[in-house]
Amino acid sequence: MITLFSVTVRDHLMIAHSLRGDVFGPAQRLHGATYVVDVTFRSEALDADNIVVDIGRATDELRSVLSALTYRNLDDEPDFAGINTTTEFLAKVIADRIAERINAGALGENARHIAAVGVTLHESHVASAGYERPL
Amino acid sequence: MITLFSVTVRDHLMIAHSLRGDVFGPAQRLHGATYVVDVTFRSEALDADNIVVDIGRATDELRSVLSALTYRNLDDEPDFAGINTTTEFLAKVIADRIAERINAGALGENARHIAAVGVTLHESHVASAGYERPL
Amino acid sequence: MITLFSVTVRDHLMIAHSLRGDVFGPAQRLHGATYVVDVTFRSEALDADNIVVDIGRATDELRSVLSALTYRNLDDEPDFAGINTTTEFLAKVIADRIAERINAGALGENARHIAAVGVTLHESHVASAGYERPL
Amino acid sequence: MITLFSVTVRDHLMIAHSLRGDVFGPAQRLHGATYVVDVTFRSEALDADNIVVDIGRATDELRSVLSALTYRNLDDEPDFAGINTTTEFLAKVIADRIAERINAGALGENARHIAAVGVTLHESHVASAGYERPL
Amino acid sequence: MITLFSVTVRDHLMIAHSLRGDVFGPAQRLHGATYVVDVTFRSEALDADNIVVDIGRATDELRSVLSALTYRNLDDEPDFAGINTTTEFLAKVIADRIAERINAGALGENARHIAAVGVTLHESHVASAGYERPL
Amino acid sequence: MITLFSVTVRDHLMIAHSLRGDVFGPAQRLHGATYVVDVTFRSEALDADNIVVDIGRATDELRSVLSALTYRNLDDEPDFAGINTTTEFLAKVIADRIAERINAGALGENARHIAAVGVTLHESHVASAGYERPL
Repeated sequence: MITLFSVTVRDHLMIAHSLRGDVFGPAQRLHGATYVVDVTFRSEALDADNIVVDIGRATDELRSVLSALTYRNLDDEPDFAGINTTTEFLAKVIADRIAERINAGALGENARHIAAVGVTLHESHVASAGYERPL
Repeated sequence: MITLFSVTVRDHLMIAHSLRGDVFGPAQRLHGATYVVDVTFRSEALDADNIVVDIGRATDELRSVLSALTYRNLDDEPDFAGINTTTEFLAKVIADRIAERINAGALGENARHIAAVGVTLHESHVASAGYERPL
Repeated sequence: MITLFSVTVRDHLMIAHSLRGDVFGPAQRLHGATYVVDVTFRSEALDADNIVVDIGRATDELRSVLSALTYRNLDDEPDFAGINTTTEFLAKVIADRIAERINAGALGENARHIAAVGVTLHESHVASAGYERPL
Repeated sequence: MITLFSVTVRDHLMIAHSLRGDVFGPAQRLHGATYVVDVTFRSEALDADNIVVDIGRATDELRSVLSALTYRNLDDEPDFAGINTTTEFLAKVIADRIAERINAGALGENARHIAAVGVTLHESHVASAGYERPL
Repeated sequence: MITLFSVTVRDHLMIAHSLRGDVFGPAQRLHGATYVVDVTFRSEALDADNIVVDIGRATDELRSVLSALTYRNLDDEPDFAGINTTTEFLAKVIADRIAERINAGALGENARHIAAVGVTLHESHVASAGYERPL
Repeated sequence: MITLFSVTVRDHLMIAHSLRGDVFGPAQRLHGATYVVDVTFRSEALDADNIVVDIGRATDELRSVLSALTYRNLDDEPDFAGINTTTEFLAKVIADRIAERINAGALGENARHIAAVGVTLHESHVASAGYERPL
């Protein structure tokens, strides 16, 4: 699969959570994070408007996906019961939810040519995690 | 007071908290934040080593101040009982604690010429808050 | 006037314009710019909620001010007829319009304690301009 | 194709344009943008000087390519007549022009080992687009 | 090889060196650089803790690798005798040393599932170089 | 002195040096740094062109000042014999040299209304130093 073109949009979310496992040290305590979220849409070709995806519409969909997560304690979310909500894991959750929306047509018929979605979560100025998947 | 020279060092902290008051909307729920913290030391003159403050030592003191706050739920901290731990408020807490350490000599005798300390907390790529005070 | 606390919010606008005067060289041609806009609100004290200004509300007001400017050719705007819409000048326009809104109560009664507003427009990764004024 | 090494250089351009199509909303009006441009050169191996490409020379070629685009209204450029000059499209234009120069020897004989060129255009702090191609 | 997940950590090093070859122009003189270093760990799957690698441990290993290079004149380092220590070359040195540590178990048994390591060295706000390799 | 308007331009320099004094620890060894340099020009009013200073001309003057410092070992520079070339000190050197040029008319007659010059040197992603002076 060759994906030549890409578009990236950015937003953020702010959550509380705790992580289980000795590896996490003090992050086993209830704490929180701002994740600055970059979503990249990849495509082999541009559509008739000369775009991969409309930046405004992509931004709206990202905001909608993040609104179901932000300003929450993820330890209390039924979707994540018994799951370590690490930065890597959350990158996958966001990528999968955006992929579902593209497949459901939320970004328009043209967006069906999108070949892959990548998500990067910046958790501080010195650490980030990402997940990339085909559509 | 003229303060010509400055040195800034950066670190971060990750906390959970909730905010009380209608103005905060969804941030009234328990959530969290990464704060990327910039501390600026201001001085009228350089010391005999040609510095405002040793960057390594300043970084160590900042880390020490932040270690008493990070990976915690601020709603459970006795120091902040009944207090809205807004970004502005936390900037002041950090600036005051660093000022105390400078006054106590933790940054060395030469650091006593420092005239002011400013703290900026970046809570996302689109928002920050700060507090600046004389020593 | 001592202003200890500050809050900064960020947004952007995208405009076309041309500049008159030999000093501008090729920028005398019709071209354009993205301005990433930082607005800083300064205050001597926090209000009863422990904030300088509500970040959400400040962001909404900034977006509203920018919506009257963005996606336009400033050469055609009656407000700027015969005026060089330099980055410095636009920083003042935005600061003045936000100051008017604060004075009109758009940011709430508590926001009347805001002492100064500063605006910085980043026009590229290597240049920016700003304007700061009291309220 | 395995491309292990990369070098990236950055510059910017400032243009006016309008976009045709309902999807663009207010961006159908004449407006403009600053694009901060990152060009990445990829190679399987380093040359005899231990580089992918000379950063100074790469920077000069990028500046030369951008000088044919910057401080212009792209709606008036014959090269782009009837074309939507989206960020994605412009990334391809710049990548193709740099590829032509590499193939013509402008970056030196050694630069012929460059395997791919990628271009990212940052149009604001929250959106970018890119294009990557083999040589 | 499909590598879906990634984690990136950042640190920096400050070195002196000179480069031999006409292509380097004034950089043939003894000068220096700060390299802001991003190391990315890639993996097909998460481990039992839901991570690619522990961010704290990865940060410690990066610091350890950089401590053998920083605050030195690379022209005097036996390891680099007769070698042009370009940014590209140093990216490979750091990536290889981190790969060795992963293979030796320094990042834990779980880190053995890491499939690739990428290193990017930012040498200024306008130039960077990178190297990526499988494990 | 009220300085309402500002313009900032950015460039960088890459130097080798060593620092004398126990406080500097490993930085007593010959090492180096990239300094990303921001110069801010402040003014009470705009000139007839609606600018503080021409950004192109300011950028050229900054480049000229930096060209006398970059790609050098500062330990060998006669100007700095016996002096610790700390980040703070170099910020002052650059600010003073730019002030001299403004006073000599290098930035044009209109630039004589500039009231102050500030210089910030970013030595890594976590540390910077600055110096600000009136003209």
